[in-house]
Amino acid sequence: MDCLKPHGLKTDLYELTMAQVYLERGKTERAVFSLYVRKLPEVRNFLVAGGVKRVLDLIGEFRFSKDQLRYLKSLNLFKDWFLDWLEQFEFRGNIYAIPDGRIVFNEEPILQVEADLPSAQILETFVMNAVHLETLLNSKAARIYSVAGGKILVDFGCRRAHGFEAANAAAKAALTCGWNATSNLEAGMLYNLPVSGTMAHSYVMVFGEEEAFREFYRHYPQNAVYLIDTYDVLEAAKLVVGLSKEGYKPLGVRIDSGDIPKLVVEVRRLLDAEGLKDVKIIVSGGVDEYKIAEWRGLPIDGFGVGTRYVTSADKPYLDIAYKLVEYAGEPKFKLSEGKKTYPFKKQVFRFYSNGRMDYDFVTLYGEEAEGEPLVELVLKEGRPVKDLGDWKVARERFLSDFERLPEGLKGLEKVPYEVQIDARLEPENYLPKPRGE
Amino acid sequence: MDCLKPHGLKTDLYELTMAQVYLERGKTERAVFSLYVRKLPEVRNFLVAGGVKRVLDLIGEFRFSKDQLRYLKSLNLFKDWFLDWLEQFEFRGNIYAIPDGRIVFNEEPILQVEADLPSAQILETFVMNAVHLETLLNSKAARIYSVAGGKILVDFGCRRAHGFEAANAAAKAALTCGWNATSNLEAGMLYNLPVSGTMAHSYVMVFGEEEAFREFYRHYPQNAVYLIDTYDVLEAAKLVVGLSKEGYKPLGVRIDSGDIPKLVVEVRRLLDAEGLKDVKIIVSGGVDEYKIAEWRGLPIDGFGVGTRYVTSADKPYLDIAYKLVEYAGEPKFKLSEGKKTYPFKKQVFRFYSNGRMDYDFVTLYGEEAEGEPLVELVLKEGRPVKDLGDWKVARERFLSDFERLPEGLKGLEKVPYEVQIDARLEPENYLPKPRGE
Repeated sequence: MDCLKPHGLKTDLYELTMAQVYLERGKTERAVFSLYVRKLPEVRNFLVAGGVKRVLDLIGEFRFSKDQLRYLKSLNLFKDWFLDWLEQFEFRGNIYAIPDGRIVFNEEPILQVEADLPSAQILETFVMNAVHLETLLNSKAARIYSVAGGKILVDFGCRRAHGFEAANAAAKAALTCGWNATSNLEAGMLYNLPVSGTMAHSYVMVFGEEEAFREFYRHYPQNAVYLIDTYDVLEAAKLVVGLSKEGYKPLGVRIDSGDIPKLVVEVRRLLDAEGLKDVKIIVSGGVDEYKIAEWRGLPIDGFGVGTRYVTSADKPYLDIAYKLVEYAGEPKFKLSEGKKTYPFKKQVFRFYSNGRMDYDFVTLYGEEAEGEPLVELVLKEGRPVKDLGDWKVARERFLSDFERLPEGLKGLEKVPYEVQIDARLEPENYLPKPRGE
Repeated sequence: MDCLKPHGLKTDLYELTMAQVYLERGKTERAVFSLYVRKLPEVRNFLVAGGVKRVLDLIGEFRFSKDQLRYLKSLNLFKDWFLDWLEQFEFRGNIYAIPDGRIVFNEEPILQVEADLPSAQILETFVMNAVHLETLLNSKAARIYSVAGGKILVDFGCRRAHGFEAANAAAKAALTCGWNATSNLEAGMLYNLPVSGTMAHSYVMVFGEEEAFREFYRHYPQNAVYLIDTYDVLEAAKLVVGLSKEGYKPLGVRIDSGDIPKLVVEVRRLLDAEGLKDVKIIVSGGVDEYKIAEWRGLPIDGFGVGTRYVTSADKPYLDIAYKLVEYAGEPKFKLSEGKKTYPFKKQVFRFYSNGRMDYDFVTLYGEEAEGEPLVELVLKEGRPVKDLGDWKVARERFLSDFERLPEGLKGLEKVPYEVQIDARLEPENYLPKPRGE
């Protein structure tokens, strides 16, 4: 909520101090920066690209207002000609990207920025933050979806996401990656997402269970899910049976605490015995993909998934980088161990075998190959080349990729996927030859 | 960035469906909800309250616009009279809180909302999100501060925070909890925080080290910190020595990768031998309190701390709850194991011994005790009672509390702190007596 518009100050100080030096020293030739994940976390077999559409939607507002320029001037670091340059700034470069919803792996450039060096540099923090957040959340949402095996998944995480911006991103990521709904109303309105919800313990405590359920049904007969763990789950389940006979039959019941494996079996048996086979059992409270896997085979129809999803709790960040790979036509790279970078603007080709992804091949952009190219030019000279579509389109991309994902990568065990790097990208090729040779 | 104003939709659907039933059924008496952390994480010995000022600043905008009401109407769940109620809504209740920057523990109500039940209910998601985020970040920032033992700490996390709202919150939390600066410009402007920065590898790669350093110094003689790990750290350190003799002496050097313990010792020796004892060594890259503790005793003057701080990576969420504790004068509580709640509006008294915190005592609000009361009435009938001040005031509160924190709690090992609960708050007191007694 505490965010400024336009977005130019969504950056680190050093982006601007460096840009001033670049400009003053004429380092304004074409640069390419590549935004990618160096290494997949141990607890992810694949990632799902995200944040590209958001970058495209917001990049026109990556500018600097008079107030913001006045603030920058007050830092006593910037010269007037540079502040003028910032005042005139709008991004007029190119962006190459792998669209939201596509499954990606390490070393694959989700976003590549091509522009004069200062322009490409000052975008760094902004595009990293946007792509990191949505790729992180998409990847976690997809992992949960993958393990849930078709069960209902609803995002309950709004209250413990890292701010409402993150909460909204999480709701969108959930729906992008196959989930059914979110409880977050602002995200529902912003992105046109399906919303759903049940009731809280406070509500049950105020009315008492019987009246709470009855009243809820009276108001929301199409959407009633009764929360049955405020006092005694089995007693509440019996109450649900009684109410159902009176005509207050809910869509489902929710259990938010207790010994879940034991409770769901008993509640299911109780409901089934009374002909309530279609009353669903929803479980929430500390749910994540590990719990879902542990509870596989139990009579659970769906999950409310909150905190551990929206914070990507088992791995709350990705090893994402924004690296200079080309300047003035020359390859740029780092050789440091574990942080080696490959030079040049890149394309990724995906190869399939029997309808499943077989391996990916990272090569120079502009090369031809048999496989499916993943990288597209999405912004040309500051203008969108095509509409990437909303979350529904991203969801189609995700579901289509997910279908073709090797079965082994869909589980919780670590399974590698082959990403080949074109030998011509090896930085060693571009080292100056030792003297005397 | 994707956030709507006003803030009424920053809520879960069920808050509104429940509120509609409350209103229709006349459940509009005075309710008290308590927002607190049930249990401290294993990896936190204390928490630092946050988000209270933000709630107070924004609560006046917790309303519903025409557009938002139209959206709600489209869900086909709400009656016109309820949408009218939302349209008129502004929060007119009371808020009791422990101000930002104060050290707090489990079961201590950071925020208590007292209002008619529907009003207090619909705030749930909003206040939880705001208090959770800032308390999480304050607590992590304080833990890092605690271990850093006076070394320079700069927030570098903007790019990998969960959105810019979280990035800005992290910058503010860092400064609240004793850090020195942030690299985040938007936060710098929004909250008037000190900003600082160095240079990136891309910059060094474009110029080459010598020119990169020289140019940076020429532009920013007061603020030059040279990044010396792009190629060979020791070679770069020798270059720094040479440049310093020419008059390009930096404030410091930054090392972002490699074998830190070995490198900093060698660089320090090299600089000292040339009379550059006052050139500081700053380390960044994967830094958190565990690394800082591991590197204790090494010649490191300061740290750039990013990802692992801003995502609170070792524990990216708190077990925070917003629980109904009183309705219409009656105690409300849950007995479930591990989720037991204590009824009634509360005060916390802190007791000191020899200038250090000794224990806290949680009792009924309005009780008198010898200790220092932590809970204050901050909003009365919708109006602020006092100005809680900005981050500088919160920082004073934090530093003053930190000084009085028992030494054992300042380390990384788990050390408990005693929080006594008044026996009169035990929910067992308020159970209906079994029949026949």
